[in-house]
Amino acid sequence: MSKKPLILVINDDGITAPGIRTLIKIMNTIGEVVVVAPDSPQSGMGHAITVDSTLYVEKVTIDNGPQKEYSCSGTPADCVKLGVREILKRKPDLCVSGINHGSNSSINVIYSGTMSAAIEAGIEGIPAIGFSLLDYSWSANFEHSESFIRKITTNTIAHGLPQGVVLNVNIPNVPQKDIKGIRVCRQARANWVEQFDKRQSPMGKDYYWLAGKFENLDQGEDTDEWALEHNYVSIVPVQFDLTAYQSIKQINTWNLND
Amino acid sequence: MSKKPLILVINDDGITAPGIRTLIKIMNTIGEVVVVAPDSPQSGMGHAITVDSTLYVEKVTIDNGPQKEYSCSGTPADCVKLGVREILKRKPDLCVSGINHGSNSSINVIYSGTMSAAIEAGIEGIPAIGFSLLDYSWSANFEHSESFIRKITTNTIAHGLPQGVVLNVNIPNVPQKDIKGIRVCRQARANWVEQFDKRQSPMGKDYYWLAGKFENLDQGEDTDEWALEHNYVSIVPVQFDLTAYQSIKQINTWNLND
Repeated sequence: MSKKPLILVINDDGITAPGIRTLIKIMNTIGEVVVVAPDSPQSGMGHAITVDSTLYVEKVTIDNGPQKEYSCSGTPADCVKLGVREILKRKPDLCVSGINHGSNSSINVIYSGTMSAAIEAGIEGIPAIGFSLLDYSWSANFEHSESFIRKITTNTIAHGLPQGVVLNVNIPNVPQKDIKGIRVCRQARANWVEQFDKRQSPMGKDYYWLAGKFENLDQGEDTDEWALEHNYVSIVPVQFDLTAYQSIKQINTWNLND
Repeated sequence: MSKKPLILVINDDGITAPGIRTLIKIMNTIGEVVVVAPDSPQSGMGHAITVDSTLYVEKVTIDNGPQKEYSCSGTPADCVKLGVREILKRKPDLCVSGINHGSNSSINVIYSGTMSAAIEAGIEGIPAIGFSLLDYSWSANFEHSESFIRKITTNTIAHGLPQGVVLNVNIPNVPQKDIKGIRVCRQARANWVEQFDKRQSPMGKDYYWLAGKFENLDQGEDTDEWALEHNYVSIVPVQFDLTAYQSIKQINTWNLND
């Protein structure tokens, strides 16, 4: 690539989150950066899009870096759509999302605003990567993530990605010297066991907080959960063709047209 | 199954939508029905969950049917979680979602609150089906859907579904006599080409409406789009293991650990 790649940067924790600020800093060393990110946290938004209300976009300056930045009232998926159709003058060469404050491994990919932004870009035909660090705190230390993010990003630009595939990258929250390397993995079979916290409002009305415990049901050593537990950076190639091809034949045996 | 199956009914158009009222009526003839549905429309919510605010649930009576009904302030995925953990006394035998007012074929599965409810149930290990009619209007005619929904539901109860698979059923909006049958399909490769509608508020601030045109990029005759265009009811078996297995080997050739 002779000219600098155009990189669209998105996240779901909001445009001022330390995670996206780190990602912008890294991407500024690789390409020309345009940021379109939510004006407030959007964690757990999954692949939500705004169909029943209006969207606002505002050009903002948050630090003195060379990137252009836009703050958007919508979801991460909205940010990709607006970024690609309204803000950028050409299709970006890459879309990176994150760095998420907290894991998006295994089944979390389904609930993740970070990954939905990457998937939305993938649907648009843009090579895309979601990055997450296994530390939910706002003051998470992203320093040790930088070399891995740089390596995975430059390789993605050099090699491209297969049509219909985006990358879900998770980074363990341990010192850099303890990280053993990078592993390409499958998504572990896991779920959340919800324990709702039921309370009563001052007006006497019951309400709930969603809380829960993550449960890994998968003993495989080729999963993202295994890699992360053993201090590897995990990469899961993620597709948005959700067809369970192996089940088509089976359901055809039901003879639904008899 | 000796006793009546316990069926959890959800949707994303809200508990009073004609689509879910039709679905409840059908399910009442098949099993014991508990409804947990959003108190307001949640279209386009994808797999959003409520992590940063509280959830309200209220027992309601909307018609004189035998079902129990609960209206919930959360998203479709929240409704499943609350239904399974807090409202039902045992794990339901089936979860059905819909009938959605409008298509959830092809890439729409990604944005669909209807399908995210079915997928959430699938993650919980409950056989689940999302039903959608290809008519966005509130006054859509669901009458011709009934026999197909009944047939697919009773077959799902009789045969079960493979672990990790839920069904995405779409029904053409044509008279019953014109429907040619049921086809098990793959998800068509398609996307939305957004055309944002930019306007200015009375206060002079720019804002956008998300609008767009659906584009089917897939010529295959084994897709849901093909089936629906040819007046078949489409069933796509949908999985939530998003791993693009065929890409793992390819990305390993990048030698990211060198």
